[in-house]
Amino acid sequence: MTKNNKPQHMFELRVYSEDTDCYDMVYHPSYLSFLSRARVEWLRGLGFGLKELHDNGYLFAVRRVTIDYLQPAKLDDELQVTTYIKEIKRVSLLIEQIVIRPRDELTICKAEVKLAFLDKSLHLAKMPESIIKDML
Amino acid sequence: MTKNNKPQHMFELRVYSEDTDCYDMVYHPSYLSFLSRARVEWLRGLGFGLKELHDNGYLFAVRRVTIDYLQPAKLDDELQVTTYIKEIKRVSLLIEQIVIRPRDELTICKAEVKLAFLDKSLHLAKMPESIIKDML
Amino acid sequence: MTKNNKPQHMFELRVYSEDTDCYDMVYHPSYLSFLSRARVEWLRGLGFGLKELHDNGYLFAVRRVTIDYLQPAKLDDELQVTTYIKEIKRVSLLIEQIVIRPRDELTICKAEVKLAFLDKSLHLAKMPESIIKDML
Amino acid sequence: MTKNNKPQHMFELRVYSEDTDCYDMVYHPSYLSFLSRARVEWLRGLGFGLKELHDNGYLFAVRRVTIDYLQPAKLDDELQVTTYIKEIKRVSLLIEQIVIRPRDELTICKAEVKLAFLDKSLHLAKMPESIIKDML
Repeated sequence: MTKNNKPQHMFELRVYSEDTDCYDMVYHPSYLSFLSRARVEWLRGLGFGLKELHDNGYLFAVRRVTIDYLQPAKLDDELQVTTYIKEIKRVSLLIEQIVIRPRDELTICKAEVKLAFLDKSLHLAKMPESIIKDML
Repeated sequence: MTKNNKPQHMFELRVYSEDTDCYDMVYHPSYLSFLSRARVEWLRGLGFGLKELHDNGYLFAVRRVTIDYLQPAKLDDELQVTTYIKEIKRVSLLIEQIVIRPRDELTICKAEVKLAFLDKSLHLAKMPESIIKDML
Repeated sequence: MTKNNKPQHMFELRVYSEDTDCYDMVYHPSYLSFLSRARVEWLRGLGFGLKELHDNGYLFAVRRVTIDYLQPAKLDDELQVTTYIKEIKRVSLLIEQIVIRPRDELTICKAEVKLAFLDKSLHLAKMPESIIKDML
Repeated sequence: MTKNNKPQHMFELRVYSEDTDCYDMVYHPSYLSFLSRARVEWLRGLGFGLKELHDNGYLFAVRRVTIDYLQPAKLDDELQVTTYIKEIKRVSLLIEQIVIRPRDELTICKAEVKLAFLDKSLHLAKMPESIIKDML
């Protein structure tokens, strides 16, 4: 099922020293953590707390990421991550995430992330109908 | 210039607690750090120490990563990163990196990474001929 | 100058996967990052933005940390860091920080942190009178 | 039981971008990860693989760290961590760890770390006699 591309969720964060490197910018793997935080809060908003999922033996595993680094973010920047659904399948989700710096409206990076829904033994599992319906 | 795909460099690393998460596997952004370490050692082998580059005001910036997560690595695993060149341009490199676990020959993840060569003001800069020649 | 021990600042944060390890708890070094974020927001509240300090060539460097890990925090926990001043000197600060989990009022860890105020060449520098006054 | 302070183990590591921050030095919490890696390799040398411990439901949990940051390490530095035992008890260990930069023999930081031996339910457990004997 393909979604029309309307934003699902906005997430804000602050860049701290822990996110930067000696090139005086955000260390490139840290953006994957930012995207992950945004997805967690998006799913929580849909009633899918990460902890409950985890306790029930389910997780959304990242299967594929394509990320374009467009501009460097810096210490102390306030960033905003917008999450869009591109495609919903029974056992996976394709989503797009865009990180901008609202202060100057700069787009920092863009990513496409494929998530698989897995059970405890790391096999593909069907997402509950309820979560799918809430995403539409 | 397109390269035939022969391995340029092998890098070995051990998975520590710091690389894992509560799902008892390597946290997905940590692989980008593993790939980065492997590239640094590959460039050092070509005479391009990261520190000298940095002191001279140059850096290889990551412009784009596509990474496929195939199998989860675990605490204490010994992993091997192989780096291949796919394309060399004047101001950028396209490389492929594969992470395997030699113990059982499992492929853990595969990535394509585009690097841009930048000067201090973060503008594209020409890579020295010497480094290009050594990569061929 | 010794301060009576009244709280200076409260900071809240959420535990994400990036903060946990394969023992299903927060990875112990991550707490130092939590404490650091709390200090940054405390100083910002006093008018000492980290970025401005950094741009002016100053930083608060951590000289010594003593941290007691009392209870493990877990994925998804909401934590609260309280920051107290213990001693203010011309070139350094001694502070106490306590991390609790408000949900069950559990104390997660306690730390004493000595910060030195340094200039660009990493020499001790006098803190501006204004900041000292605001801390009293 | 108090040990005379002879070195138990030496561990070497390289500083990568992931370990640095925008102040162009190693980010202070990263040293706790370096110390952790050194302890893991020390215990492995004594026959205590982290993975086996973990699979058997045991872990060495960090109860207390006191760390003095003496000099900043930088990108690309090769560092050496030396681990000493200070005290062995039935359910805990007190150890000292020193990080130096062999290139110029600079001491980067010193730490005292108290480890507790815990079972799956995070209760104190007796360390096996065999491990204690090997540490003496």
